[in-house]
Amino acid sequence: MIKPNSEEVFEKHRGGKIGTKVTRQIVNKKDLAVFYTPGVAEVCKTIAKDPGKVFDYTMKPNTVAVVTNGTAVLGLGDIGPEAALPVMEGKAMLFMELAGINAFPICIPNRDPSEVVDIVKSIAPVFGGINLEDISAPSCFEIEERLSKELTIPVFHDDQHGTAIVTLAALINALKLVKKSIEEIQIVINGAGAAGIAIARLLQKAGANQICLCDSKGIISKDRSGLNSEKQAFATGSSGTLADALVGADVFLGVSVPGVVNAEMVRSMAKDPVVFAMANPVPEVEPESIFDLAGVIATGRSDYPNQINNVLAFPGVFRGLLDSGIRTVTSEVKITAAKAIASIVKSVSKNYIIPDALNLEVPLIVAQAIKKIQIIKQPSKD
Amino acid sequence: MIKPNSEEVFEKHRGGKIGTKVTRQIVNKKDLAVFYTPGVAEVCKTIAKDPGKVFDYTMKPNTVAVVTNGTAVLGLGDIGPEAALPVMEGKAMLFMELAGINAFPICIPNRDPSEVVDIVKSIAPVFGGINLEDISAPSCFEIEERLSKELTIPVFHDDQHGTAIVTLAALINALKLVKKSIEEIQIVINGAGAAGIAIARLLQKAGANQICLCDSKGIISKDRSGLNSEKQAFATGSSGTLADALVGADVFLGVSVPGVVNAEMVRSMAKDPVVFAMANPVPEVEPESIFDLAGVIATGRSDYPNQINNVLAFPGVFRGLLDSGIRTVTSEVKITAAKAIASIVKSVSKNYIIPDALNLEVPLIVAQAIKKIQIIKQPSKD
Repeated sequence: MIKPNSEEVFEKHRGGKIGTKVTRQIVNKKDLAVFYTPGVAEVCKTIAKDPGKVFDYTMKPNTVAVVTNGTAVLGLGDIGPEAALPVMEGKAMLFMELAGINAFPICIPNRDPSEVVDIVKSIAPVFGGINLEDISAPSCFEIEERLSKELTIPVFHDDQHGTAIVTLAALINALKLVKKSIEEIQIVINGAGAAGIAIARLLQKAGANQICLCDSKGIISKDRSGLNSEKQAFATGSSGTLADALVGADVFLGVSVPGVVNAEMVRSMAKDPVVFAMANPVPEVEPESIFDLAGVIATGRSDYPNQINNVLAFPGVFRGLLDSGIRTVTSEVKITAAKAIASIVKSVSKNYIIPDALNLEVPLIVAQAIKKIQIIKQPSKD
Repeated sequence: MIKPNSEEVFEKHRGGKIGTKVTRQIVNKKDLAVFYTPGVAEVCKTIAKDPGKVFDYTMKPNTVAVVTNGTAVLGLGDIGPEAALPVMEGKAMLFMELAGINAFPICIPNRDPSEVVDIVKSIAPVFGGINLEDISAPSCFEIEERLSKELTIPVFHDDQHGTAIVTLAALINALKLVKKSIEEIQIVINGAGAAGIAIARLLQKAGANQICLCDSKGIISKDRSGLNSEKQAFATGSSGTLADALVGADVFLGVSVPGVVNAEMVRSMAKDPVVFAMANPVPEVEPESIFDLAGVIATGRSDYPNQINNVLAFPGVFRGLLDSGIRTVTSEVKITAAKAIASIVKSVSKNYIIPDALNLEVPLIVAQAIKKIQIIKQPSKD
């Protein structure tokens, strides 16, 4: 793992990582009269009369809010809105560097889903899109669902859909390699939080028929009590441990915790098993221990081949959404993005199923693919 | 008046006037590991443990929210949050250009003062200061008062205090010219909204003893019913019209509407009357009509001498507040800012009582003066 020097990290964070900039300059009084009073009043009046003009004469069409309440930050858990800010600034950097999108952190202390929804709706007039980030499950599902319905700009919870899109992209290429089709494979997902649920939902939409969802208590079975509605939707008739679930499975997708899978469990899987051990920074299974057993291995880390990193999705997805005016992030949008990411890998191999996280071609190709959806039809809600 | 060409105004507003920028660059995977995962986690953990560190390792200490609900935008009234955005972007430009401060527009649709307070408190974690803007009276008073008490970062309603500071600065120099002292003069303020009330309050703190506040119904008299609490505080025993109030007065301060004062009314004032006709874009009285009658004339316009423009106050005030860590905008802060602005005019004359709106020395001098307050003592609330 690339573990940067701690002193360097703090030194480079001093004063923060992003800021605001002017895109026009005020040099003299004439500029002041154009950009401020009295000139600006003309623009205000025009927008007041025709609200859609806010997309022509303000920053809104190219500006995304990166919203968190700090309840599920990285693997650190509920550390609050201030402590989450460095991550949101990092996210904003990637929006700008990879897709030229203005992104601004909105870090709020509220935990109640309705309050979060109300605040995001209140700040929405300035933004062309909302990227939800590091909000704990199951609140994140309700928050995203309500905001998607109640706002007229796209809303995207990256921990759900960013992860799901990139996972699907990697899976598309992995399946080419092991010569299996998504309709036929048995998939085990370990982790039933934001990422696990979103991956399961997207894989279903992409054709997967046999998904077994597990959490820290094992297979999510219909017999279990106290399941939230998201888990209930994936509850199966069988029960058992993760090890039980993996016997004969074709694909393991881990969005959970380090060390829950071992070589023996991988050995129990079907021929050429696909293992995506995405727990960060320590994967569910040490890649070295299963290198000879697995058909394909991917992790969340940059020091192994095949890094499944959300950076591959959100910049291009938002570039495409903002440019096309698509207001709802449908399954079609997500599957299109996944296929676009997968398509960038021209010759798939065991060590190359997914593009590099900083490949600048990725956001361009993803955005182009999403913009083509719009040309064909205005997508409806899922 | 500098009235810019309408076509040019719209063309130059296309796509907006501000954006976000990265202040560190992500070029390779090592950078990604420093600024995003896994490196950023170290910074998050440090802030979670010691919340004050958010001022060291994030954008917060140099970032101001420009908050409006769009209820009193310029002279256009209640045009809503989207139509207010071009003004907020303009304000953000001036924050950056004149004081190097990251400023970001927060435009909200809420009208209820408690809701506005709740939303601003919720977004506060990212910001080092709150600039309230274009919020109608009397809500603006309650909103600012509550936020100042309930937040630990400075809160400044520019329509109140920016206007009051610059008006006091101009008055300090005008009184030098007409050789009168603030303690002795009779002041008539026309307009009892955010600006009028704030001017009246600040002039009292600066030593003024005789202030007569008028609104569209004339002198605010104790006999009148239905006065809000801010107006009540300035209600006097006398009653009558604005013309009645001006007889024998030394100073007229207009923050009202065009044309409510004429030459005859100015002729009824005391010797060498000071007339600040600040209604925008058309002043309370045409300067040409009283040029020979008045001791000093100022307006809000850039095409006459002595432009009273808030731009002279807010960039330097916030630079000083952010750099010194002063958390409350006391009268001492405001009077210090006014004196600093006045001090920049080295030789006061009838046509030069206040610095040019884009004089880059102003924010520096204002910020320096505010930072000196901090060295002497930690200011308490008013």
